[in-house]
Amino acid sequence: MRKLYHHWLTPASRKIRLALTEKRLPFELELERTVDRRPEFLALNPAGEVPVLVEDDGTVVAGGGPIAEYVEEAYPGATLLGHTPASRAETRRLIDWFDAKFGREVTENLVGEKLHKRMERTGTPNAQAIRAGLANIHYHLDYIGWLAERRTWLAGDEFSLADIAAGAHLSCVDYLGDVPWDEHPDAKIWYARIKSRPSFRPLLAETVPGAPPPPHYADLDF
Amino acid sequence: MRKLYHHWLTPASRKIRLALTEKRLPFELELERTVDRRPEFLALNPAGEVPVLVEDDGTVVAGGGPIAEYVEEAYPGATLLGHTPASRAETRRLIDWFDAKFGREVTENLVGEKLHKRMERTGTPNAQAIRAGLANIHYHLDYIGWLAERRTWLAGDEFSLADIAAGAHLSCVDYLGDVPWDEHPDAKIWYARIKSRPSFRPLLAETVPGAPPPPHYADLDF
Repeated sequence: MRKLYHHWLTPASRKIRLALTEKRLPFELELERTVDRRPEFLALNPAGEVPVLVEDDGTVVAGGGPIAEYVEEAYPGATLLGHTPASRAETRRLIDWFDAKFGREVTENLVGEKLHKRMERTGTPNAQAIRAGLANIHYHLDYIGWLAERRTWLAGDEFSLADIAAGAHLSCVDYLGDVPWDEHPDAKIWYARIKSRPSFRPLLAETVPGAPPPPHYADLDF
Repeated sequence: MRKLYHHWLTPASRKIRLALTEKRLPFELELERTVDRRPEFLALNPAGEVPVLVEDDGTVVAGGGPIAEYVEEAYPGATLLGHTPASRAETRRLIDWFDAKFGREVTENLVGEKLHKRMERTGTPNAQAIRAGLANIHYHLDYIGWLAERRTWLAGDEFSLADIAAGAHLSCVDYLGDVPWDEHPDAKIWYARIKSRPSFRPLLAETVPGAPPPPHYADLDF
């Protein structure tokens, strides 16, 4: 069985879990505490980061970006990127927006500071970073709302890896209760549609030991 | 004529300049001072970052990752990624290694602190960050040497975007004279081969006003 090494509340792992499920590619999850730097895991990915995908034939693909592209190439058919080079470029621009910009400006400041530092015992939360994350998220929710008002899904007419990347990040921040949904109704409507997809259910059911999510987290009518 | 918005000593811009030249796709360069946040430029890329590619037909592709993938899809033929999903995954793993890990651990700490902060008047160099960058680079040069000893090029038998991404970052750091080549002979041999490619010449000829490179920077026999 295909295996995916992941860790709790890491958006890149969640992105690949969603992508594999949307593409109907079965996999088993293996929790990897990357902070332990296991030699067997470093042999799979010298960068020491999740996600890592191991195929039945032994093929190893390391990293959220490379796995997403690999899955599209190895299993063509229902695409999650788009049908033309230009539409695929727009999907990838938005994937980068969430994985790089949202990640740096919001997720790292909130999930990184409040949760990962505690789980991995790598330091104490930085209050200034948390304030920055809480301030920055409004701009990103405005952008999601702006896109969702003009397009069926974030990158265009079809559900894509752009929605998946955005949903992966927002679900991690929402686990902390730090997404001000009521101030951003257009983004909230988009997220409600994401949340109701069957691929999202396993993420909403997962809880991190010692850090339960707020009640609205798994509620489809939040 | 195809247009590429770039800025001096930004590895993502250099990566695309190299990729376009290697694929024999002519382009004209347009210097964009992203710190000015020009509305016309933000309309092309709301993230406000270079590189941005504008095709003759008006297609806009924003971001180093999306442009590299777009160029492969829109102009197939001599690939810079590889021929199988698995070999392309290995190329992309290494592109990520340099663009994300090397970028965060080395380039931002050295080029970002010493040069971009001064050019863009966004602060004063952080001595602790510079020390971290100078320490971190050894590990990365060891990794390049390790790969170069075992493979013809970084990702395998063929010259690829992995070599281009690594060369783009290292050329920016080398512009400051901060690459300890003599302590890493295997990495140095690999870089000498990169440096002698015709696609590299325009980068080596470019100088930043007020910040000339050291004499060895453009020297093929360094």
